[in-house]
Amino acid sequence: MIKKYTYGTPFPTESVTEPFAASEGMPEFGDIHLQEGFSFTYKLRDEDVVYGLGEANRGINKRGYQYISNNSDNPHHHEDVYSLYAAHNFIIVSGEQTFGLYFDYPSTLTFDVGYTRSDELHIFCERADLDLYVITGEKPYDITKQFRKMIGRSYIAPKFAFGFGQSRWGYKTPEDFVAVAEKYRENHIPIDMVYMDIDYMDNYKDFTVNEEFRDFPQYVENLKKDHIRLVPIIDAGVKIEEGYDVYEEGVEKNYFCKRQDGSDFVAAVWPGYTHFPDVLNPDARKWFGEKYKRLTDAGIEGFWNDMNEPAIFFTPEGVKDVKEAMKAFIDKEETVQDVWAIRAQVTGLANNAEDYASMYHNVDGKMVRHDQVHNLFGYNMTRAAGEGLREISPDKRCLLFSRSSYIGMHRYGGIWTGDNKSWWSHILLNLKMLPSLNMCGFLYTGADLGGFGCNTTRDLLLRWLALGVFTPLMRDHSCENTREQECYQFEHIEDFRHIIGVRYRLIPYIYSEYMKAALTDDMMFKPLAFEYPEDRMAVNVEDQLMLGNEIMIAPVYTQNAIGRYVYLPEAMMLVRFCPDGKIEQTEMPKGHHFVEVPLNEVILFIRQGKCIPLVDAAECVDEIDMDSLQLIGYANSTYQLYDDDGYTRAYDLEKSTVWLKKEENK
Amino acid sequence: MIKKYTYGTPFPTESVTEPFAASEGMPEFGDIHLQEGFSFTYKLRDEDVVYGLGEANRGINKRGYQYISNNSDNPHHHEDVYSLYAAHNFIIVSGEQTFGLYFDYPSTLTFDVGYTRSDELHIFCERADLDLYVITGEKPYDITKQFRKMIGRSYIAPKFAFGFGQSRWGYKTPEDFVAVAEKYRENHIPIDMVYMDIDYMDNYKDFTVNEEFRDFPQYVENLKKDHIRLVPIIDAGVKIEEGYDVYEEGVEKNYFCKRQDGSDFVAAVWPGYTHFPDVLNPDARKWFGEKYKRLTDAGIEGFWNDMNEPAIFFTPEGVKDVKEAMKAFIDKEETVQDVWAIRAQVTGLANNAEDYASMYHNVDGKMVRHDQVHNLFGYNMTRAAGEGLREISPDKRCLLFSRSSYIGMHRYGGIWTGDNKSWWSHILLNLKMLPSLNMCGFLYTGADLGGFGCNTTRDLLLRWLALGVFTPLMRDHSCENTREQECYQFEHIEDFRHIIGVRYRLIPYIYSEYMKAALTDDMMFKPLAFEYPEDRMAVNVEDQLMLGNEIMIAPVYTQNAIGRYVYLPEAMMLVRFCPDGKIEQTEMPKGHHFVEVPLNEVILFIRQGKCIPLVDAAECVDEIDMDSLQLIGYANSTYQLYDDDGYTRAYDLEKSTVWLKKEENK
Repeated sequence: MIKKYTYGTPFPTESVTEPFAASEGMPEFGDIHLQEGFSFTYKLRDEDVVYGLGEANRGINKRGYQYISNNSDNPHHHEDVYSLYAAHNFIIVSGEQTFGLYFDYPSTLTFDVGYTRSDELHIFCERADLDLYVITGEKPYDITKQFRKMIGRSYIAPKFAFGFGQSRWGYKTPEDFVAVAEKYRENHIPIDMVYMDIDYMDNYKDFTVNEEFRDFPQYVENLKKDHIRLVPIIDAGVKIEEGYDVYEEGVEKNYFCKRQDGSDFVAAVWPGYTHFPDVLNPDARKWFGEKYKRLTDAGIEGFWNDMNEPAIFFTPEGVKDVKEAMKAFIDKEETVQDVWAIRAQVTGLANNAEDYASMYHNVDGKMVRHDQVHNLFGYNMTRAAGEGLREISPDKRCLLFSRSSYIGMHRYGGIWTGDNKSWWSHILLNLKMLPSLNMCGFLYTGADLGGFGCNTTRDLLLRWLALGVFTPLMRDHSCENTREQECYQFEHIEDFRHIIGVRYRLIPYIYSEYMKAALTDDMMFKPLAFEYPEDRMAVNVEDQLMLGNEIMIAPVYTQNAIGRYVYLPEAMMLVRFCPDGKIEQTEMPKGHHFVEVPLNEVILFIRQGKCIPLVDAAECVDEIDMDSLQLIGYANSTYQLYDDDGYTRAYDLEKSTVWLKKEENK
Repeated sequence: MIKKYTYGTPFPTESVTEPFAASEGMPEFGDIHLQEGFSFTYKLRDEDVVYGLGEANRGINKRGYQYISNNSDNPHHHEDVYSLYAAHNFIIVSGEQTFGLYFDYPSTLTFDVGYTRSDELHIFCERADLDLYVITGEKPYDITKQFRKMIGRSYIAPKFAFGFGQSRWGYKTPEDFVAVAEKYRENHIPIDMVYMDIDYMDNYKDFTVNEEFRDFPQYVENLKKDHIRLVPIIDAGVKIEEGYDVYEEGVEKNYFCKRQDGSDFVAAVWPGYTHFPDVLNPDARKWFGEKYKRLTDAGIEGFWNDMNEPAIFFTPEGVKDVKEAMKAFIDKEETVQDVWAIRAQVTGLANNAEDYASMYHNVDGKMVRHDQVHNLFGYNMTRAAGEGLREISPDKRCLLFSRSSYIGMHRYGGIWTGDNKSWWSHILLNLKMLPSLNMCGFLYTGADLGGFGCNTTRDLLLRWLALGVFTPLMRDHSCENTREQECYQFEHIEDFRHIIGVRYRLIPYIYSEYMKAALTDDMMFKPLAFEYPEDRMAVNVEDQLMLGNEIMIAPVYTQNAIGRYVYLPEAMMLVRFCPDGKIEQTEMPKGHHFVEVPLNEVILFIRQGKCIPLVDAAECVDEIDMDSLQLIGYANSTYQLYDDDGYTRAYDLEKSTVWLKKEENK
């Protein structure tokens, strides 16, 4: 059951799609105080587990740390980071009392989950203007499903988007992108997408391509003939440049965010000084969304929206202050404090709170200060794109995902988890985020495989790909000036071909589980606790996940490891994809196991009495041969396969589903 | 067997104490090239494991990454960091061919251990002036023991230094330090040392105390009556201040590092602008070492040497350049590139390579550019202290450890592993460094328990203490402006009392194993591979260690975990120190186990047929009651206990050792 409590005057975020009348009185869990802003406290018992928060740091169980919803362009996802790119304010306490809480509040909100005091959950924010939804149910899984239903159906990606994609900040010329495509095809490593980071644009101007592309539609078409889609990036900031029509239109129509004095707010990002489209204004949102047509007209079928926290490198006001401070510094005999102060001011130019507090949105004719609705920007930029693309092609799905997000955005696009690093710990962080993201409606998601920042290594990329095999978005992406990390850059390319090949063999299953989860408001990735809530060991597992209804995954995430420990909450079938293409199936009893996993193998576990579909490896999604479909797993089991054309939006769960039966093993 | 190969004109680092004639020809392993600097390459087989490198990042097995010996004041020990505070150039390849290599080279040296190519070990440096020692033996452990003998006996700490210590950057006044001592005593949490970080000094001037202390000897004495030793920090930089005698003497005697023009080199550190004592000059070293007497005369019995990479915040030359750049920046219409360039220049002031290349040492009358001997500074600052303290008290040991080091320094003091963070991953990094450090002679060592940077949590500190229970240096240390992390800051102080109490119960064993390792050039902490080289699983274990000859440790290092997996290479006795003071002993068979470990328990494993001594918990080392000694572990086993007065330097392994026999269990 869901009860809604309204405090003050909440901003209408439109994150919830079902209507709820506000309840009177106080929620039955915890204590609420409204003296200084809003505060919710709840006494945690030793055995309580806390789930949720979507794209947040640390564990599946969020206990023992603090998380601050304050969408941030911070590429350093260290253990101590409180804020990432998203605000996913849904949390579940599971224990003596089990309940879910959704705080629909678009500004900074802190979740102290047994961080200050190990036995206290404390959730607070500055202004007591919010809707609080309290969801009760038997178990966290049940509560999650109620929540998911309340926030509306998740975005559904086209089928090609379940293939593998290669990306790198640094590809610039037409030759660069073609070279990547060719190298993959030459080496017979499957691939469906090549991503275009900022350098494909003309001077970082949104909805342009640089002049080297000449006939861009033809260029797009040529790659598509080879079953490779180009997926360009779109940034939040619109370059200030005379003659650039998007800029000129936006200024003319008052579609950009404002300063307090009504002038257009200016912030430097990749193109230099820019304006931000005021995506909280429905007219501006519609206008911005329509612009994607320039690229869909050229044959583009997918986009990623970036820098939409929005990230700010600096503002003219910030630089002016820095220059003043520099003048004073220059005239001084410097002390350590002086040097550190000027350093702090220069490094503090980026994503500065003062800048966010001097930017305004036009909401129904009223000026709303940006910092009070900060966490809605990426959501509404992607909503602009999602709504625009639906206008442009009402019948056809488009690939769309975003860096920044808020709950509600899951209806319009997926997310990638931002600028991670080539760190082994980030494989595990990738895994831990998946069920939390699914709880919040984000199904189409994945991390930058191999790591975005820092230099990757061959083994790190292989191990990360062996997790990426299972994530809907499977993309290798890296940062300029790091080691090149396309699969063909390393020794023994056959190992990469094999691992990514396993992905393609599994696409019928992954796509089917994704679609069923999306169409029934269910999770695709679940913590073991959601399936085995009575199994104390399962509840504590933080490095294995249930994927759909049939399998459990347990990737290796430590360097030089020959394998890993796996806990089986019930007897399961270990499936091993060997480098020679063979598939080994071994039934293993419930309990603890050490499972050896060589660098060039993928393993998964099929639940007792179940089976999954598998096809022959293909080099792209279009070429998957469904006639090669076989079922692996337990004999005499059945699987409910969802499949459709992969491109239209006319979803029909019943019509697109068949029951497959695995006969006796030979 | 050890062979020495000399290339060019090596700088005499005095890291090796045994004389070796240089061999002719080439080493029998790998390929050496001398065309551009020095390069050693060796083809790694899949099964080769690589050990060593002391205080370095990542695993016990160093494969799959790059490590650069270039002593650096970098408090961000991320997975991608190549250089920490130390240069420990000893490495062992274990596999089809097994051999050790020691590169006695005091400047930047790169170990590419299967990083660029997964099958290649590549070790290189800019100048081909070095001694290479090639050590052959049956196994890595045997090679390590030969190496340890060659570099001389490890530093031996006084017994009180095996107690627990509390530290924090931020304690300043006499009241601050006393308050810490009192809080520990009031709460009956055992403690022996309170550390004094930089604020105890008068304006950060080495060998001074701030005026608030008034009668410092009396102050020191009062705490000592309560069995608490104060351990002050000494920094590398000597403040430039008229009337400060250390500064004035150094200038007068030409004992400071120079610029190329012969003037004293100037660098800003905590005190503002300073000079660095030229510790490569034996006269200057002697002079600096004698200064410690000012504090030993006040009753001080221990020191930590810091900032001795040496860290540089900035130099006048660097600031002058920055000011010029600022002037140009101020006059420009800023672009993104302009802002980033000035930001890079300001942040690049610290630990700048150009500064290290403009500083000089006086070595036998010759000017030696600092960057060519950079990695020797911390070593020789601590050598100055070690030699000075031996002069001051020839018969009495003094506690001494350093941040920066080079092999050779292990004879003069220990090390702590620098400015880590309150991260769970740094518990594991702490553990992984221990055997590598022991290989390189560093026995007295430990990490900042609870983490130096960032905010700790109660559970993190408890779990980290449960590892620190076993490290010779057991110190809780934290950074200014982070959450206070003395044990009494948290709920349920009894849990901290218990965990640290276990340390005191184990001191007879830890001290005995430490002393035996030091006096026989052995390791105290070993990888499992060193004891069970034929056990493939044991060779791959990276989160358990052998401690001495009797026990194996396996601490919990993940948040919210109810326990952990442990691999037993043979049957062992699980010993569980329960919060009620009881000790549970359970024999467990060889193999894989999941062992539950509540937050307030410490576990260890006793090897088959062995036993260890245990005493009653005491609140300080002085009050340990050796009459309460009992043996736990296997019946009919024996233990060789080393014990001595703990303070004199007249070590006698034979005279100080007794054999204890554990009788039949009742």
